[in-house]
Amino acid sequence: MPQKVRIALDAMGGDVGASVVIPGAAIFLTRHPDAEFLLFGDRAVIEPQLAHHAGLKKVARIIHTDVAVSMHDKPSQALRRGRKIGARASSMWLAIESVKKGEADVAVSAGNTGALMAMARFCLRTLPGVDSPAIAAVWPTMRGDSVVLDLGATIGGDARHLVTLAVLGSAMASVLFNLERPTVGLLNIGVEEIKGREEIREAAELLRAMNLPQLEYVGFVEGDGIGQGAADVIVAEGFSGNIALKAAEGTARQINEFLRGALSRSLISKIGYLLAKNAFKALRDKLDPNKSNGGVMLGLKGVVVKSHGGTDAEGFAYAVDVGYEMVRYDLINKIIQMLNRDGSALAQAPTAQEAVS
Amino acid sequence: MPQKVRIALDAMGGDVGASVVIPGAAIFLTRHPDAEFLLFGDRAVIEPQLAHHAGLKKVARIIHTDVAVSMHDKPSQALRRGRKIGARASSMWLAIESVKKGEADVAVSAGNTGALMAMARFCLRTLPGVDSPAIAAVWPTMRGDSVVLDLGATIGGDARHLVTLAVLGSAMASVLFNLERPTVGLLNIGVEEIKGREEIREAAELLRAMNLPQLEYVGFVEGDGIGQGAADVIVAEGFSGNIALKAAEGTARQINEFLRGALSRSLISKIGYLLAKNAFKALRDKLDPNKSNGGVMLGLKGVVVKSHGGTDAEGFAYAVDVGYEMVRYDLINKIIQMLNRDGSALAQAPTAQEAVS
Repeated sequence: MPQKVRIALDAMGGDVGASVVIPGAAIFLTRHPDAEFLLFGDRAVIEPQLAHHAGLKKVARIIHTDVAVSMHDKPSQALRRGRKIGARASSMWLAIESVKKGEADVAVSAGNTGALMAMARFCLRTLPGVDSPAIAAVWPTMRGDSVVLDLGATIGGDARHLVTLAVLGSAMASVLFNLERPTVGLLNIGVEEIKGREEIREAAELLRAMNLPQLEYVGFVEGDGIGQGAADVIVAEGFSGNIALKAAEGTARQINEFLRGALSRSLISKIGYLLAKNAFKALRDKLDPNKSNGGVMLGLKGVVVKSHGGTDAEGFAYAVDVGYEMVRYDLINKIIQMLNRDGSALAQAPTAQEAVS
Repeated sequence: MPQKVRIALDAMGGDVGASVVIPGAAIFLTRHPDAEFLLFGDRAVIEPQLAHHAGLKKVARIIHTDVAVSMHDKPSQALRRGRKIGARASSMWLAIESVKKGEADVAVSAGNTGALMAMARFCLRTLPGVDSPAIAAVWPTMRGDSVVLDLGATIGGDARHLVTLAVLGSAMASVLFNLERPTVGLLNIGVEEIKGREEIREAAELLRAMNLPQLEYVGFVEGDGIGQGAADVIVAEGFSGNIALKAAEGTARQINEFLRGALSRSLISKIGYLLAKNAFKALRDKLDPNKSNGGVMLGLKGVVVKSHGGTDAEGFAYAVDVGYEMVRYDLINKIIQMLNRDGSALAQAPTAQEAVS
């Protein structure tokens, strides 16, 4: 019997806090009984929620704090206000800190993204060989799931940053999808010759020249290639990764609205809708953003998972699932191993110019 | 009776050439009889097509060339091979050149995007005050249509480039949507404080400080704001604009596939689908990429419209519609006027630092 996975939850994070976090943890626990929880937040709010979930209550410990990071705090404010020492720190900070102290294996929060990134980075620090962290998420595609990163943790970056992202994303994909050598593509645009940004072309040359044993570089992927499942891992710097994610999400929401409007326009189409309801349910399940909820902060000395702030209990449970898998299949050690091997490969890697010539 | 709009068509462009271009022109002509055509391409291929469309034949003249730019030519190759003098030039080059010579008001091609951009830029040159051209397209949103640019003509660029894009896009939106003062947003990411790239923040300050009479700057728009119709005009540099467009297109295609799969899974859902067929047709029409076909190259001394290479006759007709509207409502003069006014405003504009302080 393996050790239990110890999960720290920011019980005050997200639009509604404990009323989603606690039922979410309970759903998660039915799927993964080999876990235990540290719940950071206001005891007076958490305890009534916990009363409904006897199983969870047995494996959970509340660490009280009445300080919570607001969804509207700026990261620097949150860092200033929410850090502090001991019991006056925010639930978000304490959850992350418990990972640093080795009291938990992973922290999950549905709170303010900017604050979470700032705190996680400040508290956990980046792994040796990683210049700056990334946020990665699972993207449902036509061929199964892919890992896409960076979704906005770090804006810009040179070719080596992109290669590091490739390594981080591959580690996550191999853990999540149980792949020996995930395929990796670089997000780029396809207007011949111009072929996107300099640093992306350079990163492509580096990845080819390095021929890393843990990932298979398959080339450039255009924006529409992500949804086609062109690679197991899609690498972009944070700005374009975020734009791609949001544009895709926006389109999905838009089509959903159109569809609802179109189907309710006449009696016949309403009847048709009722008959095809299961089909629509299958579709909605497939596209449900809850089912791919959970952005993983990669490149830090510890695992932190960001859940959507507006998610429901089911969605929060998925985010905890993601955190659990990362711990159970040893993401951090996998990354450290890859960075040791590939980091030294990276250090010795030919510069792009040498690689080209 | 206004003058006829004279349209130059690259009859050899696109995946199948004249067999889409000619029927497409015929469809267009039923909607806009006040047009006439110059058809550039292989007479032996065009004439049999034209034989089916007596109305079009009456207002069309064929200019023969048997040189065509391949969809796979690199722009530099195409420019070298396809230019030349007189009858040995490519259909694409000749169509663009007819605009330069004043023989046509607009050129439309479904050919190789990179080649078309290179040729259009080389032949027509950019307008005074425009550093480099952009490609703009109409994006169907939840509140009607928006103009989105740049979709990949120019990668990168500083704050002033983004302001120029705002001016170009507003001119197009005011022509297409008949708006006095279109709203303009800058595509950005929403992770607090980091708030995207430096040049975008600077462009925002410039647009606020300039307070141009022909456009209303409304702020940053995230990737999912495009589909929500957050502004009439969405401005991004070419890399992120292209990523957003392709990610959205990919998602739409993916959902379409899922939906088809889900609806054909059981007999009941098939019957439901049949009953709701009209609703689906309405949805498909709304999302039909053909109906927003036609990327307009903006910032040149002439109008060039790029149709999707894989479009059908209906889609090509829409691209010609777009070109027609640009001419009929005097896009180029509108841009020149705006650039004169705003260009001088731009020249005198405070630098971003001054604007901020």
